[in-house]
Amino acid sequence: MMSSRRHFLLAAAAMPAAVRADTGRRGMSWAEVEKILARGDMKGRLTRDDLPTPALLLDLDRFESNVAKMVGHVKGRNRALRPHGKTHKCPEIARYLVKSGAVGNCAAKLSEAEVFAAHGLANLLITTAVVGKHKIERAVRLASRRPDTLFSVDNAQNVADLNAAARAARLKLNLMIDLNVGGRTGITPGDPAVALAALIAAQSNVRLAGLQSYAGQASHTVGFDNRRRVSRDAMAPAVETRRAVERKGIECPLVTGGSTGTYNIDSEIDGVTELQPGSFMFMDVDYNIIGGRDGDRYTDFANALTVRTTVVSKPNDSTAIVDGGFKAFATDRKFGPEPVRLPGAAYAFAGDEHGRLTLKESAALQVGDRVELIIPHCDPTVNLYDRIYCLRGDAVEAAWPVAARGMSQ
Amino acid sequence: MMSSRRHFLLAAAAMPAAVRADTGRRGMSWAEVEKILARGDMKGRLTRDDLPTPALLLDLDRFESNVAKMVGHVKGRNRALRPHGKTHKCPEIARYLVKSGAVGNCAAKLSEAEVFAAHGLANLLITTAVVGKHKIERAVRLASRRPDTLFSVDNAQNVADLNAAARAARLKLNLMIDLNVGGRTGITPGDPAVALAALIAAQSNVRLAGLQSYAGQASHTVGFDNRRRVSRDAMAPAVETRRAVERKGIECPLVTGGSTGTYNIDSEIDGVTELQPGSFMFMDVDYNIIGGRDGDRYTDFANALTVRTTVVSKPNDSTAIVDGGFKAFATDRKFGPEPVRLPGAAYAFAGDEHGRLTLKESAALQVGDRVELIIPHCDPTVNLYDRIYCLRGDAVEAAWPVAARGMSQ
Repeated sequence: MMSSRRHFLLAAAAMPAAVRADTGRRGMSWAEVEKILARGDMKGRLTRDDLPTPALLLDLDRFESNVAKMVGHVKGRNRALRPHGKTHKCPEIARYLVKSGAVGNCAAKLSEAEVFAAHGLANLLITTAVVGKHKIERAVRLASRRPDTLFSVDNAQNVADLNAAARAARLKLNLMIDLNVGGRTGITPGDPAVALAALIAAQSNVRLAGLQSYAGQASHTVGFDNRRRVSRDAMAPAVETRRAVERKGIECPLVTGGSTGTYNIDSEIDGVTELQPGSFMFMDVDYNIIGGRDGDRYTDFANALTVRTTVVSKPNDSTAIVDGGFKAFATDRKFGPEPVRLPGAAYAFAGDEHGRLTLKESAALQVGDRVELIIPHCDPTVNLYDRIYCLRGDAVEAAWPVAARGMSQ
Repeated sequence: MMSSRRHFLLAAAAMPAAVRADTGRRGMSWAEVEKILARGDMKGRLTRDDLPTPALLLDLDRFESNVAKMVGHVKGRNRALRPHGKTHKCPEIARYLVKSGAVGNCAAKLSEAEVFAAHGLANLLITTAVVGKHKIERAVRLASRRPDTLFSVDNAQNVADLNAAARAARLKLNLMIDLNVGGRTGITPGDPAVALAALIAAQSNVRLAGLQSYAGQASHTVGFDNRRRVSRDAMAPAVETRRAVERKGIECPLVTGGSTGTYNIDSEIDGVTELQPGSFMFMDVDYNIIGGRDGDRYTDFANALTVRTTVVSKPNDSTAIVDGGFKAFATDRKFGPEPVRLPGAAYAFAGDEHGRLTLKESAALQVGDRVELIIPHCDPTVNLYDRIYCLRGDAVEAAWPVAARGMSQ
């Protein structure tokens, strides 16, 4: 964390006119850049200024530092880490997480998990119920290739449907009971969940793997003490449900949940066996403002993901129009992206394709200059891009395909 | 329009339990569906119930009726139609529009135009300025393949850069002067624009093709009379600028602008030569509520585009959770999608992957049922999907790739 921040400050100091694009200084043509991008051997050949904007950029030093910090924390509390792949949708990142110590990866949807599995990833937990004859057929096919896959259920009919399909295919599915601890999906903790566990235990071709217990309301609760209270309140029924299930003689090895906002809260709750945060690796404006243990800003993890844009119009001295709008940034929050290294500048959406920068101290910004922005909300922003450009300092080290982009099925 | 509406009412009447999914009734397996989708010969073989959700659906009868109505209106006023491809990003649709009478298509960005050109489309107008050495290199390459391409400019340096690149490539670029009539990009109409026209006319390798005059503030002004006033006020300086340019002896054949909200306003302004609306072919909640000539709803065009979702959880009688959230619908408006044929139901976003339906009369909705929703805003919604499933009634007739999805560069 510290080394990452130091690197950033040094880099910023070395770039007094960091917004001025270098494109062309070194004289590389687009035809050459295009060839390098197509071949994928960009290491050391391209810099961030060679990339066509809007471009999604990952600062690898910060990303690696974020991952190391989360792995260290979770392992230090003897919990497992199964980061949520819905954040990145990128097999390279999923592999890096496992290499760094994660037990596996989560996927929000079946089609996302299919992409991860097709790229060789194992130990996948699908956090949304697999519903309907066709999707159940796909789930069984996935389980036949990856028997360690975990599927979430929250009702008896779905258990019966999954069991029937698994029986027909002569295999056994691992089920997580999705608990309603967040006011969204899931069965009510306590007796209803225990009854569902008993139903699962009574079926021939499914087995109970544990409890899926995600409390969305906790992740972005502002203020650490508030957040701790909300998350503890949400997770307590999950832990109690697990005990009640085990009192029935049914094994229930896993209790999984948590988020980037609650990792250091949930990791201290007895009975929570693993965490499934996602945003920590990238970070975003949304998490920056939830407040940390010692301040208004949440600085546990560094902002590693930005979108680089170009000023395409300068209608007046105090306004610069950049080439990123609704199609370049997630728009599900009340706030937009935040410009980096551009004091006094504020971004406002200006339609599908444009953003409006209102400038104060940086009125010198010109058409053609580049502006990088911290993304408002990482998951739906990444879902807009086909590739993540990975930077080491200013050098482009790789372009990782967002292979599960759009895989919401 | 009437026949489309009649078709819809008949279809709705024939489907009292339209939300109940048919998947499995006809016994087709996912493996069979997957094969048909991969081969692309789905005509008559698949119905909407066979599609994995969330799925983007286009009602072809309504789409065709929308296009016929717009083409008929614009041609009836002796104007040209160059619909905006940023709405659909789909070469099949761009081709259909030309076949139906459009003179060409607009593209928001260079990379979008490159995709259209690679699919054989001509007469493309790129409505955002092409800025920076690499993009200008790409523009020249595009113009060498499609000499009829129109590029937008709003400042002298960009004109000089384009001219230099065109001269090096020994070709001539067609330039549209982007006028600031909408408070976003563009040069000030009147003298500054006339001076830019003179500069273009004085260069060796660019020629003036016309004025790009898009007034975003007019398109969604609520109430027809208000909208007419706002759009006329916005377009008047464009028409006057054209006259002033021509008084200098510089030809300025095109004045283009307009939107789905202003098509029948701008088509009656003397001097506006062509219209570039996009949303009319699909429609969305955003346009439904701007008000028409004779009422609060804007009914000139029919809602042809929906997203089909599946109920994946039913936490209580009055709540159904569907599998579409921030990654299935555009979130840039204050409102979300609107459920179709589900009286008393209201949708609220419930995160990246889910939506929460609050139910009244339709409490009978069960896990596995399908719910279709009118999209809040069409352009950024289409940009989330890799294909548009085209329906004739309930039959899937085609799956059109959104080939320029993500092409915001």
